[in-house]
Amino acid sequence: MYERNIFENISPLDHRYSLPGEDFEQYSRYLSEKARIGYQAQVEGALVKVLARRGICSEEIAREILEAIEEISPEEVYEEEGKTRHDIRALVNCIQRRVSPAARPYVHFTTTSFDIVDTANSLRFKEVSEKLLLPELYELEKILMEIALREKETLQIGRTHGQHAVPISFGFAMAEYVSRLGNRIREIREKSQRLVGKIAGAVGAYNASYLFFADPLEFEKEVLAELGLEPATHSTQIVEPEPLADYIHSLVSCFGVLANLSDDMRHLQRSEIGEVGEYFAADQVGSSTMPHKRNPINYENVKSLWKKFMPGMMTVYMDQISEHQRDLTDSASGRFLPEIVVGLLMAVKRLQRVLAKMSVDKENLKKNFEQNKEMIVAEPLYILLASYGHPDAHEAVRRLTLEAEKQGLALREVLKDHEELRGYWENFTEKQRDLLLNPEQYTGIAARKTELVVDYWKKELRI
Amino acid sequence: MYERNIFENISPLDHRYSLPGEDFEQYSRYLSEKARIGYQAQVEGALVKVLARRGICSEEIAREILEAIEEISPEEVYEEEGKTRHDIRALVNCIQRRVSPAARPYVHFTTTSFDIVDTANSLRFKEVSEKLLLPELYELEKILMEIALREKETLQIGRTHGQHAVPISFGFAMAEYVSRLGNRIREIREKSQRLVGKIAGAVGAYNASYLFFADPLEFEKEVLAELGLEPATHSTQIVEPEPLADYIHSLVSCFGVLANLSDDMRHLQRSEIGEVGEYFAADQVGSSTMPHKRNPINYENVKSLWKKFMPGMMTVYMDQISEHQRDLTDSASGRFLPEIVVGLLMAVKRLQRVLAKMSVDKENLKKNFEQNKEMIVAEPLYILLASYGHPDAHEAVRRLTLEAEKQGLALREVLKDHEELRGYWENFTEKQRDLLLNPEQYTGIAARKTELVVDYWKKELRI
Amino acid sequence: MYERNIFENISPLDHRYSLPGEDFEQYSRYLSEKARIGYQAQVEGALVKVLARRGICSEEIAREILEAIEEISPEEVYEEEGKTRHDIRALVNCIQRRVSPAARPYVHFTTTSFDIVDTANSLRFKEVSEKLLLPELYELEKILMEIALREKETLQIGRTHGQHAVPISFGFAMAEYVSRLGNRIREIREKSQRLVGKIAGAVGAYNASYLFFADPLEFEKEVLAELGLEPATHSTQIVEPEPLADYIHSLVSCFGVLANLSDDMRHLQRSEIGEVGEYFAADQVGSSTMPHKRNPINYENVKSLWKKFMPGMMTVYMDQISEHQRDLTDSASGRFLPEIVVGLLMAVKRLQRVLAKMSVDKENLKKNFEQNKEMIVAEPLYILLASYGHPDAHEAVRRLTLEAEKQGLALREVLKDHEELRGYWENFTEKQRDLLLNPEQYTGIAARKTELVVDYWKKELRI
Amino acid sequence: MYERNIFENISPLDHRYSLPGEDFEQYSRYLSEKARIGYQAQVEGALVKVLARRGICSEEIAREILEAIEEISPEEVYEEEGKTRHDIRALVNCIQRRVSPAARPYVHFTTTSFDIVDTANSLRFKEVSEKLLLPELYELEKILMEIALREKETLQIGRTHGQHAVPISFGFAMAEYVSRLGNRIREIREKSQRLVGKIAGAVGAYNASYLFFADPLEFEKEVLAELGLEPATHSTQIVEPEPLADYIHSLVSCFGVLANLSDDMRHLQRSEIGEVGEYFAADQVGSSTMPHKRNPINYENVKSLWKKFMPGMMTVYMDQISEHQRDLTDSASGRFLPEIVVGLLMAVKRLQRVLAKMSVDKENLKKNFEQNKEMIVAEPLYILLASYGHPDAHEAVRRLTLEAEKQGLALREVLKDHEELRGYWENFTEKQRDLLLNPEQYTGIAARKTELVVDYWKKELRI
Repeated sequence: MYERNIFENISPLDHRYSLPGEDFEQYSRYLSEKARIGYQAQVEGALVKVLARRGICSEEIAREILEAIEEISPEEVYEEEGKTRHDIRALVNCIQRRVSPAARPYVHFTTTSFDIVDTANSLRFKEVSEKLLLPELYELEKILMEIALREKETLQIGRTHGQHAVPISFGFAMAEYVSRLGNRIREIREKSQRLVGKIAGAVGAYNASYLFFADPLEFEKEVLAELGLEPATHSTQIVEPEPLADYIHSLVSCFGVLANLSDDMRHLQRSEIGEVGEYFAADQVGSSTMPHKRNPINYENVKSLWKKFMPGMMTVYMDQISEHQRDLTDSASGRFLPEIVVGLLMAVKRLQRVLAKMSVDKENLKKNFEQNKEMIVAEPLYILLASYGHPDAHEAVRRLTLEAEKQGLALREVLKDHEELRGYWENFTEKQRDLLLNPEQYTGIAARKTELVVDYWKKELRI
Repeated sequence: MYERNIFENISPLDHRYSLPGEDFEQYSRYLSEKARIGYQAQVEGALVKVLARRGICSEEIAREILEAIEEISPEEVYEEEGKTRHDIRALVNCIQRRVSPAARPYVHFTTTSFDIVDTANSLRFKEVSEKLLLPELYELEKILMEIALREKETLQIGRTHGQHAVPISFGFAMAEYVSRLGNRIREIREKSQRLVGKIAGAVGAYNASYLFFADPLEFEKEVLAELGLEPATHSTQIVEPEPLADYIHSLVSCFGVLANLSDDMRHLQRSEIGEVGEYFAADQVGSSTMPHKRNPINYENVKSLWKKFMPGMMTVYMDQISEHQRDLTDSASGRFLPEIVVGLLMAVKRLQRVLAKMSVDKENLKKNFEQNKEMIVAEPLYILLASYGHPDAHEAVRRLTLEAEKQGLALREVLKDHEELRGYWENFTEKQRDLLLNPEQYTGIAARKTELVVDYWKKELRI
Repeated sequence: MYERNIFENISPLDHRYSLPGEDFEQYSRYLSEKARIGYQAQVEGALVKVLARRGICSEEIAREILEAIEEISPEEVYEEEGKTRHDIRALVNCIQRRVSPAARPYVHFTTTSFDIVDTANSLRFKEVSEKLLLPELYELEKILMEIALREKETLQIGRTHGQHAVPISFGFAMAEYVSRLGNRIREIREKSQRLVGKIAGAVGAYNASYLFFADPLEFEKEVLAELGLEPATHSTQIVEPEPLADYIHSLVSCFGVLANLSDDMRHLQRSEIGEVGEYFAADQVGSSTMPHKRNPINYENVKSLWKKFMPGMMTVYMDQISEHQRDLTDSASGRFLPEIVVGLLMAVKRLQRVLAKMSVDKENLKKNFEQNKEMIVAEPLYILLASYGHPDAHEAVRRLTLEAEKQGLALREVLKDHEELRGYWENFTEKQRDLLLNPEQYTGIAARKTELVVDYWKKELRI
Repeated sequence: MYERNIFENISPLDHRYSLPGEDFEQYSRYLSEKARIGYQAQVEGALVKVLARRGICSEEIAREILEAIEEISPEEVYEEEGKTRHDIRALVNCIQRRVSPAARPYVHFTTTSFDIVDTANSLRFKEVSEKLLLPELYELEKILMEIALREKETLQIGRTHGQHAVPISFGFAMAEYVSRLGNRIREIREKSQRLVGKIAGAVGAYNASYLFFADPLEFEKEVLAELGLEPATHSTQIVEPEPLADYIHSLVSCFGVLANLSDDMRHLQRSEIGEVGEYFAADQVGSSTMPHKRNPINYENVKSLWKKFMPGMMTVYMDQISEHQRDLTDSASGRFLPEIVVGLLMAVKRLQRVLAKMSVDKENLKKNFEQNKEMIVAEPLYILLASYGHPDAHEAVRRLTLEAEKQGLALREVLKDHEELRGYWENFTEKQRDLLLNPEQYTGIAARKTELVVDYWKKELRI
């Protein structure tokens, strides 16, 4: 009755992007409706453990309830909700039905629905981060580190505004993403750890638990500690929305880094640039009518997923607003939040796969570098002229550049015979003249910086 | 193999909001992956019909292909895509496999993948609008019209800034939504009709079809006419994104009207206001710990869905940008668009249900009106004073109001004995004095306007 | 006292992008605070004209008030608002102060603030569209048309996914923007015409005007007709927000077209592609340290402005929601809407300037086309093979392509000696063989379509 | 020439919200274009200080340059930019013009424009946070703390879904905002401290500075240390965008807290609720036609500002993407970021003012509490029944509630005579019966928790 052909689903997350044999099962383990109910049951379990420890109920009753919790299925809860029209009440009823009359009162004892819902939610986002998302991000980070180190000396023309600027190395370009992704991993780690729970009752004032506990704050702390969570500083019916907003922001801004990386890669795959390649399966069809194409479809996919999921942050910001001790206008919208985690996971896995097989085309790198090689020395020339006392080096080089272009010569050729500047040229040291003659050496500390960046994040992330 | 328990799905659209016996099946018929493939096959079918009509292939071949198309299943297409890594190629292969060697060349003849994909997409949004969304919206509109007419004389205090202003009728307040929803229905109708298709080839220049047709524009027109669509004025590999953006805007802005209506209703259900009630099923649990509550959960749900789906428009705006003759960064994101239609449909159906059972609490309406009744006459008093020549009526009434408040009297009491204003009072006509004594009559043309609004939209929408 | 150095302003619209001698003055004329107050005064003027025509007040009084309106300055209104704390009351006081005691009551007679505010707002967006925005858009559209026609035969390789596909013409690529911009111009025209006004009083039920007019709807109509506006179908304190939402959507989606055009142009200016150039002023500095660069800064600027202003649509969607007969939470946000118009105008003007000087680099166009010339015939070859009865043409060409690549030969070379396919080659007509030998002819109807698109939009827009 | 009447400005930030005598001057000091140029000059100053310290140039030259920097005006820079078309080049030229030929080369030595621009940007957001925004937030936080403590025992009915739930205290409700605002203040503090700078050259590889420094990383560190900043882990032409994205997120999410507070307050000001009041200036006009109204305009204004500025985060997310070593599509958009800070400051200042004068209406608080007083005991009754062994307490109370409603009696009346439940009632302790008879005592630990929350944030924020 609850079985369905996946192609009848609406969300691509549940059909196209959830094919058998792919990663869907893992996502589902933490982020499906079944998982949600499982986490909620787990919170009910933590509650009864503490009740027993504090002697409110017997150990036997706790055991009875904990065993019942193990058996709960989503089907059952939904059948019950069909009658009660209330999801947590349905869960509670399902547990109570399985235990002895003596045990029943201790199910959900003194708590309100959102003690369970919000705590379970924090728990699941914390767990999926620790156990699935962060490990996958570490994996991606390591692949990026590997490429960066491997290509740290590979000459590449730096590009600003899509224009050739001064050279870097391919590894240095990748180090940008080692650093930015590292930074986001750290943020996700921090913010997933700061997700909070609550056992504070219907309006957050511990109205019900205070009937039984002199210090309901301690009771709350103890229950949450069972789950590895801490209480919010203040709660209403729900936990403060900001820790979750911070967490989702950490995901969304991480997604932005992946989108930028993907844009870079797909542009480097342009027909005219061709500096990197994407693996091409032998029996893959690039396009239905243009069989010769090698599209950067994986990077395009990541960019596209970013466009889909990034605006979800707007919903989170709107859900910060809940009237008085809460309104329920964050309920349906909040149920969709796991999608952002799945979207990000899909992008991460896809990048792992494609980057692991990425090939760097040294020939094209060289060809592209050569294209404006003669002009690359403009920057060091300007700096050197200035440091040798030229009063307006910038303007001088600009004019020289125009001249060189007009004559179709390299800058240095024009320079050597240049009435005004020849004197400077002759004063330059051997090493400086060398540089102007060999612009491929003008990469600053690209290689060293690449190593430093990789080292820094290896230590910082302990991966 | 492609069967799955719905509770293992990620999207609430595919678990919680898709329970058996609910409306999901209808949504799925138009908006699932199965439906998507079905629409694509339909476009391939339209193509071959025109090929036969134009004598490019025989009628028999066309029949063969059309029969094959009928049998295609999503499972089969996905199995094939597992090999080809290209969804439309997979579909084409599945069709070709079913037909004779002579027929094979005419499957997908001269077209590119996105001739099929984009045309199928326009087709499905047009159809789901005509056959499902608009009929449901008409139904909701009719319910609103009914309430508006029924309550056109029911006195309600008008509220601006949450403050009592001057009176209207409850029906007039509903007429706002008759009008705004009517306006959006018209917009959805227009914009769904303007969705366009294309049979213009890989880069939109009819490169391939021009090999066979002197006027490939005519050919395109004819294929699309089979599907009730018109061609875009210009295409690249894809159709111009703006007609789709307009369509989604019409949906999103319609959603905003429903969200506003829901906000109004849930505030009118506040404990202190209580002007409307929401049906309360006998065995429904309002909250797990507060069984006495009657929460406006349906309106809260609609507001929440709006918060979820509204930001989807951002994705649409970003997807307007596709480099040169297209990049693929709109592909994954575009696959999620049906979700917005489903979200809107869910909100519409929910409002139909709750509004059909809405009760108006006349006692509370009266009680609320009485609360500031004495102050309501401030506005007409000011206007009348002005029209009777008072040089600064606004200031006069403001001071009178403060005085009345201080003395705890009705405005008219203070007025009658007011040194400066008494003269004006005595000059007022009987009717005008009556009004100041009976502020419940100060509703302008609320009832008449309600009728006019309902009439206008009945005619305009022909419902 | 109200003079300020522009560099002390916060918004770049009021400093950087508003330098003397630029277009700012025009924007300010319609969209500044001074203009806002001017439009509001104009609505007060329309009101009194109709009052006189209907004999409510004398012609002389109307003249007196209209003269007073002419003299109102924003400084004065703001000084007065400092006391009244209410902007429209302040405006009314300023007018009243200038007229005889007998005239005073007829200023703002029977109206509420938002009769004036919302009507003035619709008026100004309608006017700025008619008089400034649309003319500038026509100008841009004409420049695009000119380029499209001029370059309609200029061969360009079509690009999908940043990869070379099949050829088009440069003019055809521009025709995309002729069409999409034309479509948006039409939408802006329509939606700016559908902006509505209201003279319906504090809660929209004509409570006050009904004191004096048997048919306050006719009165409303007449006042609005003075301003070239029509009334909304229904109003509360404010006009229905959807017409404005539609208008802003038309602007935002038009902005998206400009952003896409800009992205295309800046990519075509990449060092490796170089198909178009941006004018380079003799004394312009490309970058402070790289004087040789020619950055696509104008296109980058347009893209950047789009990123800034596009999300403004979210504010508009949130402002659709106003509780009951209105809350004021749309007031401050609504005051910022003119910024979107200015942002769009800035982008339009910038594109006019840069496109007017755009140069097409035919050498690079040729070079880029040649790069994959040998592979371009894959598509027509596949189509032809299929039409000549090859049972699996797609797969055949795919394999042929891989072979050609491996051997470093042109497709046709491999084809001619290809055991399986040689037979087909020999059956091809002369014309078809020609095409395979001259892939630059494989541009479909690019040139003709360009003409058709330009013609269509010239007529449709009457420009 | 650069003076302008503020009412000719476009942005409300530069006209309406920047009136003389208000807070605008302070905002302008940090966030205007003048300030921007000032910060950029300051970075140039830090650079030359380090050059002198390292002996690259003489102390005298440094002094000369530093003095020149002091004199730079925005007018001058803009005049120069009119010629160079490059803002930083213009600034550099203006400085150079003022110094001796010998000093000129050391202005801007080895740096690229965005070394200056991005470092200056981080500097200004850090400074405006430290010196203006955070102090104002502390002030607001203290006002909230004061109200919370003052009203910690003031009984208020808790509200969920707009429905009366169980009681809290007014101070406890305010403690929510003490906590959430405190949390955001901490986040803004952290994230403003983590803003980074760069002196890494045109593509981030220290290409130019490496010509002169063996360890350009140390050089960068030293220059930034002059400004109290640290370098980014990795830079391209620009600093990594994520620290800025985190900072803006901290602002936007703080804004959400203020919006929620404002929504709560304005609903508590509804005519029917009336639990809080907003100060009403003696000569303030509430509405042009309804002089008796006391609108929650300040809270409405804050909510409206939130709607305006919140979507700005989307721009920040889009600006995370910059191609290769950067494209310039983040330039114009980035110039508008100060607006978000100003928007937030305006909201903070407005809330300070209105909350400082907020009055709590104890009579209405009591009246509202009494309204459903009889039903409030449902929750404790349910809990108590359960703890006394009732097998299905929830259902029992639900039925009892319906019964009580039907009979128009208090729950406890029905309870005492209730066949099934009477026995439980008799078993309750005196204290428990007391509670059921005096529901105003059922506030949990609202008062104590309020104190704890205030204490916690006082210490955490050291305010």
